[in-house]
Amino acid sequence: MPQTAAQIARLSLPKPFPASQKRYFEGSRADLRVPYREISLSPTLQSQGVQENPPIPVYDCSGPFSDPNYVADLAEGLPKLRRSWMEDRADTEVLRDLSSEYGRQRARDLLTHDLRFPSPPRPRRARAGSNVTQMHYARKGIVTPEMEFVALRESMRLEELRKDPAYASLLRAHPGRSFGASLPEQITPEFVRREVAAGRAIIPANVNHPELEPMIIGRNFKVKINGNIGNSAVTSSLEEEVDKMVWGIHWGADTIMDLSTGEHIHETREWILRNAPVPIGTVPVYQALEKVGGRAEDLTWELMRDTLIEQAEQGVDYFTLHAGVRLPWIPLTARRLTGIVSRGGSIMAKWCLAHHQENFLYTHFEEICEIMKAYDVSFSLGDGLRPGSIYDANDEAQFAELRTLGELTAQAWKHDVQVMIEGPGHIPMQLIEENMTEELKHCMEAPFYTLGPLVTDVAPGYDHITSAIGAAQIGWYGTAMLCYVTPKEHLGLPDREDVRTGIVTYQIAAHAADLAKGWPGAQLRDNALSKARFEFRWEDQFNLSLDPERAREYHDETLPAEGAKTAHFCSMCGPKFCSMKITQEIRDAYGQQEGALGQQELATAMEEKAREFRETNSEIYR
Amino acid sequence: MPQTAAQIARLSLPKPFPASQKRYFEGSRADLRVPYREISLSPTLQSQGVQENPPIPVYDCSGPFSDPNYVADLAEGLPKLRRSWMEDRADTEVLRDLSSEYGRQRARDLLTHDLRFPSPPRPRRARAGSNVTQMHYARKGIVTPEMEFVALRESMRLEELRKDPAYASLLRAHPGRSFGASLPEQITPEFVRREVAAGRAIIPANVNHPELEPMIIGRNFKVKINGNIGNSAVTSSLEEEVDKMVWGIHWGADTIMDLSTGEHIHETREWILRNAPVPIGTVPVYQALEKVGGRAEDLTWELMRDTLIEQAEQGVDYFTLHAGVRLPWIPLTARRLTGIVSRGGSIMAKWCLAHHQENFLYTHFEEICEIMKAYDVSFSLGDGLRPGSIYDANDEAQFAELRTLGELTAQAWKHDVQVMIEGPGHIPMQLIEENMTEELKHCMEAPFYTLGPLVTDVAPGYDHITSAIGAAQIGWYGTAMLCYVTPKEHLGLPDREDVRTGIVTYQIAAHAADLAKGWPGAQLRDNALSKARFEFRWEDQFNLSLDPERAREYHDETLPAEGAKTAHFCSMCGPKFCSMKITQEIRDAYGQQEGALGQQELATAMEEKAREFRETNSEIYR
Repeated sequence: MPQTAAQIARLSLPKPFPASQKRYFEGSRADLRVPYREISLSPTLQSQGVQENPPIPVYDCSGPFSDPNYVADLAEGLPKLRRSWMEDRADTEVLRDLSSEYGRQRARDLLTHDLRFPSPPRPRRARAGSNVTQMHYARKGIVTPEMEFVALRESMRLEELRKDPAYASLLRAHPGRSFGASLPEQITPEFVRREVAAGRAIIPANVNHPELEPMIIGRNFKVKINGNIGNSAVTSSLEEEVDKMVWGIHWGADTIMDLSTGEHIHETREWILRNAPVPIGTVPVYQALEKVGGRAEDLTWELMRDTLIEQAEQGVDYFTLHAGVRLPWIPLTARRLTGIVSRGGSIMAKWCLAHHQENFLYTHFEEICEIMKAYDVSFSLGDGLRPGSIYDANDEAQFAELRTLGELTAQAWKHDVQVMIEGPGHIPMQLIEENMTEELKHCMEAPFYTLGPLVTDVAPGYDHITSAIGAAQIGWYGTAMLCYVTPKEHLGLPDREDVRTGIVTYQIAAHAADLAKGWPGAQLRDNALSKARFEFRWEDQFNLSLDPERAREYHDETLPAEGAKTAHFCSMCGPKFCSMKITQEIRDAYGQQEGALGQQELATAMEEKAREFRETNSEIYR
Repeated sequence: MPQTAAQIARLSLPKPFPASQKRYFEGSRADLRVPYREISLSPTLQSQGVQENPPIPVYDCSGPFSDPNYVADLAEGLPKLRRSWMEDRADTEVLRDLSSEYGRQRARDLLTHDLRFPSPPRPRRARAGSNVTQMHYARKGIVTPEMEFVALRESMRLEELRKDPAYASLLRAHPGRSFGASLPEQITPEFVRREVAAGRAIIPANVNHPELEPMIIGRNFKVKINGNIGNSAVTSSLEEEVDKMVWGIHWGADTIMDLSTGEHIHETREWILRNAPVPIGTVPVYQALEKVGGRAEDLTWELMRDTLIEQAEQGVDYFTLHAGVRLPWIPLTARRLTGIVSRGGSIMAKWCLAHHQENFLYTHFEEICEIMKAYDVSFSLGDGLRPGSIYDANDEAQFAELRTLGELTAQAWKHDVQVMIEGPGHIPMQLIEENMTEELKHCMEAPFYTLGPLVTDVAPGYDHITSAIGAAQIGWYGTAMLCYVTPKEHLGLPDREDVRTGIVTYQIAAHAADLAKGWPGAQLRDNALSKARFEFRWEDQFNLSLDPERAREYHDETLPAEGAKTAHFCSMCGPKFCSMKITQEIRDAYGQQEGALGQQELATAMEEKAREFRETNSEIYR
């Protein structure tokens, strides 16, 4: 086995979460099995007897790695879940060789032989005259297996839980405030199709990424999060990046962007794609720039075109393209405090400056659409002019580019190519909502995909937090996917712990947004966890949390004994002061009356109960 | 020296922040010196020469400890800044002995002799017939030194910075959205007086806490944060708590609540107060409960009264009193998911239940007001029925109590006693604003002081983040002070690192709220930091951040060399890809034209500049 394959094979994969079973919803065909995680709970011990607590299903991004029946072989790659679906559609062909010149060259390169994924698949492409995008099918009225998969994944079969009395009180939830989003009570395949057809949602799913478990990004679905990985010239290796991808989806990343800028970008990406059950996004200009030795002015459309095809044939699901960094917008950044902070944006700006010509991604946008639709790569139209400081927020450069992105969206939709729009950046809270309303207006409700936004500049080292504050808000207002920010933002490259912290933090922001929008079923996990907390079922509280390991570790720092995890108090208050313990007594005193009692009835009940309370409670803490 | 005094004397105090000087604004009298911190910056190196960057003043809670001219002696206590102000007012008297029976008993107790603060001051109290609250003075039209102190502290002499051209561009800021707050362009002592008189702000300042550097809590001022400390029956010692207080104010806690519930509450509090330059709050019922061996039903008004006087004569600046947990509201919690989660609230509920009588804090509220005004202790009316889960948010129990708190506020104001109102808790984002509007309405704009709120229940171990999301929002909507939450919330007691993380996280939330409201001058620090970031002044970026040590540590993990801190790139992108570097070139190309250029002028300027750019830039990275 080549050295890299051997190193990657030795990676230790994350252990599945405790008390969790990998489960699947069965769809309309045998090969349509939609994964979810089910968290088992212990029963509630009451004076009247034992009350079972039903298991809680949660959305699961971790792929086959968390299935005990799956034996991971990273050098083999994941099962090709979608291959038969594509074969059934019979509108793609498998090519004899790669279409990209660079791809062919790398496939034959001797120096990188040892780094390569052992048996890369042959590339697939739309047959001549075919359009293989999910949007194209949707607009033709076709419900694809991908759409059905997504519908099951989003709905979590909530309609069945609703019929089950064990879940009745756990499913109670506050009405949301949706800011114009239309959240259906039940997610059907037809609903998914309509949203994709309208451009309000995308299913990033390259025909060369059959390993993908489809997911959807749109305002009327669960809010998603993206985790970035990628090596740079300064640090990190190929196997580290594969490791970070698996680690990232373990913690809950819905998509992963590979932002590598250093050596072996091509080879790293192949390893990642063949093992990724989630959509993979890239910024192709990063690699193009590597190919011209870092000289932005030496970039050409031909080189870029070859790079897009190279990556499309590897299976990249969405491309960030800074096609909106138009020549006339560049001078608008000259008076900014922090200029252009997007790497891709600044590369394109540099090229425009050096040639005094319009951005070649803008002028060649039609040709790009032709490539995208041949593989079903989705656009993530990059906000190259996003503000890099509070000072620069919502300025003319930013909004001029946003309007251009709207124009490009309309153009892509003519080709039925899927589009999402990237958003900022650094925005103080009072200016966040305008970002969302402008995006919805100018980009015709195409899904918004934002980085944070960070609501202040003053806390480097804590920018996962400054950005989660903004992310939760913009997610509530309608952003479909939140790009995570780690504690290392502005300072360094994230390590494994930073990736974990960043993803859990963004799960919080996305979930808070789901709750606030009123996403059906979102409050189930909160209710189940709070019930466990109230009943001192410590293990259940840990297991229901986004990071069971951390919750347990923090608990054990103060009360390490095993017995403390069944104790009817915690270390904050100690046994005498525990407020939850006292409340249990209040509940015992008043019972859990269903329905409202009138004031008079309450008073009577209270008198009785108070007498009873005093008679039966010689000890406060039983 | 007694053992405890010796242990406390050995505490190693935090080092002042790097590149920071302790400075003072001089007020109208020689003893009125208002501290602030000034962060020095390095100059900007430009092709045209060196441009000096003016120092940035920031609000400073750390007290004399960060003054190099002050030699800390914890067994002596801080200087008595306010003593002469109180002597000048001549409306208080120094008592021969403590008025509280328990206080006198502890002063003579042999077993705790070694634990005691060596020379506690004699207690001060209003002369018969006097009312010594800041609200009383304010309503009589008197501007006290405390009010002048606060005015200088809040304004940071912004009017002088505005006249200084060096700050012109750094002071540019986005207009805020204030949700009805009235933020003046200049904070004058008279403005402070009016706000205190109206009850919209409080200056917690017990006459027995002369060490206090006055601060103000109100919707029309900078948003403040509170840090909790306190031992419990399960863990932690007296010197640890003193250490945490000093540590907490170092990181920026505006007030500290001592929530001790274990042994030696009285002695711990004395040590804290004598060394606290910030207001200290307590929940007196915690200590009262200790006095009756933890049996809530054995609490009496007489015991509580003695405890209030005991603590008032030590110098506690505000009392959390759960006087709104009325007997009729208790049954409203029986159908909750998590009942009563406030410790104080559940103790009072227990007492009410056991006696089937109205809460004695409610029935004795007039007498409590008499005590409060004799020492100027402020009310922090506790939300004993706050929701402990998303499920219970904004329910009838919570709002019934809030209306009672409004009723009590009106009663306290008849005595000119200062009041703030405590708020929740666990609230999903869409229900946060209602909390603020209901509070403003029912409590007549008395300052709101909230715990978080936590916007989801699913992330124990990360609740500093779930709560900072809610805290930033409610701060924006008008909450005057945010009670911090640490990563250990729900799991264990915070250690030093948790206190640091909690306070820095809440500084972020409070600052984000200040920016969003449009607090004058708030954006200065953001602008200065972002300018430093853009100009690769790494040291300045670290020094301007809320946690310079962490920022530096994270940077150095990837690029440890000293040279990297002057490098014109960072580890995220490496030298070839650095977007900020590229932007500098764009700025060089277009210049920093003041005023807007028309499209035509822009086009001409661009052509010229593009030519110039190509001619002068043979190398991309100079």
